[in-house]
Amino acid sequence: MPARVDGREPADLRPVSIERGFIANSAGSVLFRAGATAVLVTAQVSESVPPFLEGKGVGWLTAEYAMLPGSTPGRKRRGADGRATEIQRLIGRSLRAIVDTRALGPFTIHVDADVINADGGTRTAAITAAFLAVADAVRRQFADRAREILKDSIAAVSAGIIDGTPMLDLNYPEDSRAEVDLNVVRLGKGGLVEVQGTGEGGVFSRAELTALLDLAESGIDRLGLLQREALGVDWPFPDAT
Amino acid sequence: MPARVDGREPADLRPVSIERGFIANSAGSVLFRAGATAVLVTAQVSESVPPFLEGKGVGWLTAEYAMLPGSTPGRKRRGADGRATEIQRLIGRSLRAIVDTRALGPFTIHVDADVINADGGTRTAAITAAFLAVADAVRRQFADRAREILKDSIAAVSAGIIDGTPMLDLNYPEDSRAEVDLNVVRLGKGGLVEVQGTGEGGVFSRAELTALLDLAESGIDRLGLLQREALGVDWPFPDAT
Amino acid sequence: MPARVDGREPADLRPVSIERGFIANSAGSVLFRAGATAVLVTAQVSESVPPFLEGKGVGWLTAEYAMLPGSTPGRKRRGADGRATEIQRLIGRSLRAIVDTRALGPFTIHVDADVINADGGTRTAAITAAFLAVADAVRRQFADRAREILKDSIAAVSAGIIDGTPMLDLNYPEDSRAEVDLNVVRLGKGGLVEVQGTGEGGVFSRAELTALLDLAESGIDRLGLLQREALGVDWPFPDAT
Amino acid sequence: MPARVDGREPADLRPVSIERGFIANSAGSVLFRAGATAVLVTAQVSESVPPFLEGKGVGWLTAEYAMLPGSTPGRKRRGADGRATEIQRLIGRSLRAIVDTRALGPFTIHVDADVINADGGTRTAAITAAFLAVADAVRRQFADRAREILKDSIAAVSAGIIDGTPMLDLNYPEDSRAEVDLNVVRLGKGGLVEVQGTGEGGVFSRAELTALLDLAESGIDRLGLLQREALGVDWPFPDAT
Amino acid sequence: MPARVDGREPADLRPVSIERGFIANSAGSVLFRAGATAVLVTAQVSESVPPFLEGKGVGWLTAEYAMLPGSTPGRKRRGADGRATEIQRLIGRSLRAIVDTRALGPFTIHVDADVINADGGTRTAAITAAFLAVADAVRRQFADRAREILKDSIAAVSAGIIDGTPMLDLNYPEDSRAEVDLNVVRLGKGGLVEVQGTGEGGVFSRAELTALLDLAESGIDRLGLLQREALGVDWPFPDAT
Amino acid sequence: MPARVDGREPADLRPVSIERGFIANSAGSVLFRAGATAVLVTAQVSESVPPFLEGKGVGWLTAEYAMLPGSTPGRKRRGADGRATEIQRLIGRSLRAIVDTRALGPFTIHVDADVINADGGTRTAAITAAFLAVADAVRRQFADRAREILKDSIAAVSAGIIDGTPMLDLNYPEDSRAEVDLNVVRLGKGGLVEVQGTGEGGVFSRAELTALLDLAESGIDRLGLLQREALGVDWPFPDAT
Repeated sequence: MPARVDGREPADLRPVSIERGFIANSAGSVLFRAGATAVLVTAQVSESVPPFLEGKGVGWLTAEYAMLPGSTPGRKRRGADGRATEIQRLIGRSLRAIVDTRALGPFTIHVDADVINADGGTRTAAITAAFLAVADAVRRQFADRAREILKDSIAAVSAGIIDGTPMLDLNYPEDSRAEVDLNVVRLGKGGLVEVQGTGEGGVFSRAELTALLDLAESGIDRLGLLQREALGVDWPFPDAT
Repeated sequence: MPARVDGREPADLRPVSIERGFIANSAGSVLFRAGATAVLVTAQVSESVPPFLEGKGVGWLTAEYAMLPGSTPGRKRRGADGRATEIQRLIGRSLRAIVDTRALGPFTIHVDADVINADGGTRTAAITAAFLAVADAVRRQFADRAREILKDSIAAVSAGIIDGTPMLDLNYPEDSRAEVDLNVVRLGKGGLVEVQGTGEGGVFSRAELTALLDLAESGIDRLGLLQREALGVDWPFPDAT
Repeated sequence: MPARVDGREPADLRPVSIERGFIANSAGSVLFRAGATAVLVTAQVSESVPPFLEGKGVGWLTAEYAMLPGSTPGRKRRGADGRATEIQRLIGRSLRAIVDTRALGPFTIHVDADVINADGGTRTAAITAAFLAVADAVRRQFADRAREILKDSIAAVSAGIIDGTPMLDLNYPEDSRAEVDLNVVRLGKGGLVEVQGTGEGGVFSRAELTALLDLAESGIDRLGLLQREALGVDWPFPDAT
Repeated sequence: MPARVDGREPADLRPVSIERGFIANSAGSVLFRAGATAVLVTAQVSESVPPFLEGKGVGWLTAEYAMLPGSTPGRKRRGADGRATEIQRLIGRSLRAIVDTRALGPFTIHVDADVINADGGTRTAAITAAFLAVADAVRRQFADRAREILKDSIAAVSAGIIDGTPMLDLNYPEDSRAEVDLNVVRLGKGGLVEVQGTGEGGVFSRAELTALLDLAESGIDRLGLLQREALGVDWPFPDAT
Repeated sequence: MPARVDGREPADLRPVSIERGFIANSAGSVLFRAGATAVLVTAQVSESVPPFLEGKGVGWLTAEYAMLPGSTPGRKRRGADGRATEIQRLIGRSLRAIVDTRALGPFTIHVDADVINADGGTRTAAITAAFLAVADAVRRQFADRAREILKDSIAAVSAGIIDGTPMLDLNYPEDSRAEVDLNVVRLGKGGLVEVQGTGEGGVFSRAELTALLDLAESGIDRLGLLQREALGVDWPFPDAT
Repeated sequence: MPARVDGREPADLRPVSIERGFIANSAGSVLFRAGATAVLVTAQVSESVPPFLEGKGVGWLTAEYAMLPGSTPGRKRRGADGRATEIQRLIGRSLRAIVDTRALGPFTIHVDADVINADGGTRTAAITAAFLAVADAVRRQFADRAREILKDSIAAVSAGIIDGTPMLDLNYPEDSRAEVDLNVVRLGKGGLVEVQGTGEGGVFSRAELTALLDLAESGIDRLGLLQREALGVDWPFPDAT
């Protein structure tokens, strides 16, 4: 079994730090770090809905994802590229899985995930952090209705196969070497929301997929505990998920 | 078990028709129909590579995906949107899985998938058809070196869960009702290239994922036979995959 | 007199094939081929009008023209360029000449002409095919009011002078060598709608213009017969035009 | 015969004024007025050619056309639209008809036509003025080689049919009422370069086309005299055209 | 003290010429020349306001600034760049300082400043000319209410330090050599509206700033007299400012 | 004298906090807070120069400024607007004032200022922070040559007049009420680099400008001490400025 560059075991997450309320002007804002990856996620609520929902009484959640120019060793140009488009669609779909848009009513929740420092796993970090930002924004804006609007917690993590060994939560050097890369988004309660497995220059078997899913689910369980701890008394659900 | 709108059994593919050489000006071109879905895929080879590969002697494959305005009942505006961006990245990654870019040498294979009529499953139809267009283009441009450049065949199909029943190859009305949607891309020989499962407003369990993967793999086996039949003596591999 | 590359006489059209109903999701759709040129034209009707016609009770017809990337031997980049802009304006003006926008009422007819394979004469092919697609769309959408909405049939063809000889319906190699290029759009009944003559690196005399107009009008007469034959019992006019 | 709003006879041009050297920083610059229409045309020469001509030793001429926001009674938004694109392509093709790009050598002549005040006929005014600006720029930049680079003079004018009467050089109110609109571009020596006839909501006969061409040619003859007068001793051709 | 390239004393303005009513289709239009710098400024009034003012009963003034391609010795590409954006914001802010938007009511004044020939000081020329164009447009559109809508006249000029000497109204060769560049916008009555001082590759002291402000104010006084003279009986204020 | 909303005296700066090295992937990075305003500034060095400097052996510094969507109470749309363009030009000009581009050699320093939370004074905060990020980046990249490359420190602050009283370092509520707004950029040693005074709906006198400059200079002196303290032993200059 190959040693990991940062000394972790294959099934270890990177150290996580969570700062809620990082931004005063957004109802919800979280600076989320997993190892050297750092993502600032904000959530704001506006009193409008996209055209296709006007007059229907239901709400919407939309997400944008971007990397700051300084977040990569070679400066990243501003402006959406294909990868960012793909990721922000994933973030939006994932977070919509926990929002009851009928309970929300005619409001839009805007999630913005800006990568401050990139070292792998930015899209899954963004989803895990977005749950916290959305929870804070919904609580602040809708107070006691938060429990109706939010159906569950949600978190995400990556796993990959390096030199034949499944490993959890890849950093950038690992991600670059991985033969297979899997991103998993799951509710706190257990339902899968998104599973995206990609052979990066290679292919993978059903058995490898199973091993990566097991690893990812164990990571999401631990991220759920960290989310719960970060929210403390603000945890929006009646009992543990 | 719910009846399917077009009378199919849950594990049935839609009827497939394949017209090779549909376009005179492209080295490879295929009009691929699966039920009412119709995609025109062309493959062309240019003597250049993207900047990040210049001087390295290796080649590249790139893909674009678009829907013609008349392909949807309400006219589709021209121009790439987020969904198209996501799909063309998927097509490109998938097809690169079968191209030996070192054997290809400093050339770029351009795949263009244009949806002529949309009735669900356009992205997987595009991948299945693109294999045929690329095979023709490589054979025409590189003749006997085709066997070195192409590592395997590739095909894709969708599966989904409707009213609790896993079903193969969803058409648009089915896709709109599906609780879960899975797209699978696999080599002819059997390795998974991409697995993308999405809870469309719902979530899915590991058992459901397994059932959908089984269904999709059986569909890909049958699509592989249709690809082989379509290429006939031009099948680029030494023996059956 | 120079021989034509495809063996035609100077006054010959290329062989034409017309497939109506090529696209299920558009009210009208035609795959039109003239020699190796192939254009897919769709027509759709929407219940809205451009801002400058709102509240006036009259309708509109608008057209877009594009070349698929695989339609040219060297891949054509997607996205409108100056030439496409010029052509789609011509198609729109031409088709508006046969639509009674007052009889149409507050609807917009959207014509989309996508070049599948380009071998010269794509703009005139698009106009000739668009008449058929519009006729089908209007008949389907407005049934018996079609005769009020459509004022006449319309068709178009090119002619040019090569080595001093006027020739009809130039293909791409001929077009590249032509000293003069004329595109003529005419009603079935006989009125000229557009005449665009261009000295391509040369100039032309009034006598040459007359010879080219004669040639083009004879071609349009024959295209009118082919249009009538293609529509058969669906021909929207009371008697022969 | 209907009276014209400005008292002209059907075959009259509007009063023309020409100011050469209006702009100090351009090698050639002309403020051209025809009635209330005013166009500022500049010509500049750069020591480079477009990519498709690099290394071939031949030059190029390119044109841009725009309307200043204040040039129309309702403010015109900046930025190219379809009409401007069509017009600048016409200006470029027309002026290239008089430039011997081989004699020019590896230089590009940039023509910019900016409409200062629009009252109909701006595209033909731009072409007539551009000849003068190009002549000045070529003379200034290439001195005695001007006679080899410029093959002839060129001018353009519009004609149209109003209430059944052919009329020359339409102003905007006339143009809005015209049933047919013809733009003609011709060399000083007599060869036709472009003929663009459009039925504006109507159609036209061959006889009407002939009448409009006669009218336009007579107008171009008179514009040629005005061009010659404006250039005086700087007329670049050995004798009268 | 260094001699100026055009023989002026340090405190001299360049010769100014003002042509009002240069454009028929704009309510106000001025061709303003200061030395070789020439700017065409138009003002038009539309019956609408930007979204943020809708329903408030107050009006707005907005400005755009552009350089024609022929205005610089090397052709200037069309399209806004950062510098133009900065300048048009300055022009808009400056002119809004003299407009009583409440007295104006729900109208927008559109100022367009197009540089015809650039030789330094185009932004200050645009402001000085814009006052005249706005005054004409307001007088024409609102007649006797002009005195309520316009609060004062406004003018602008640049000053700079060259080889240690403060100089007024720099032309382009001077501007390129200047160590410090100051643009001052002031009301006719004397209040400062904008002061923008920039060390161009150098820095400046408080004493130098004072000297430049003195010089600029004396220039603005003289420009005010020229504005007054140009408007003559149309001067919109009860007595001298 | 009016009380300030946050209890400050008119000549007080807001509390400042500086975190150097906030971003691992950028050579220099600073999270700078002044009251509730928070700006993340990064500096990166690339081995290339803009086209206009190629082959000249000198370097360049360029800056971009953006506001994160969550930085304002109503979500800020992504993408540069006119204000951002104006500000990033100011930041670039200001920082170039302290860089000896000849000593730098053929490198470009990229400064990116991203506003994390906006409460007034973001452009001046960006400049003050950018000095620190640039100092760190230059020191890291060029080690002992930093003293030659950096000519001085630089800082900036705003001042404004509210209800007739000059006040330092306006926050957003103050800025919205200010009659005059002045931004001053100055070297540590004392030379003025930029002075931008704007009457926001009002005008200002020479005496008011003097009072604001005095206030701003005193603020810049204090910011210089905070910069020096933040850099500690990494202060790049031989002795106190």
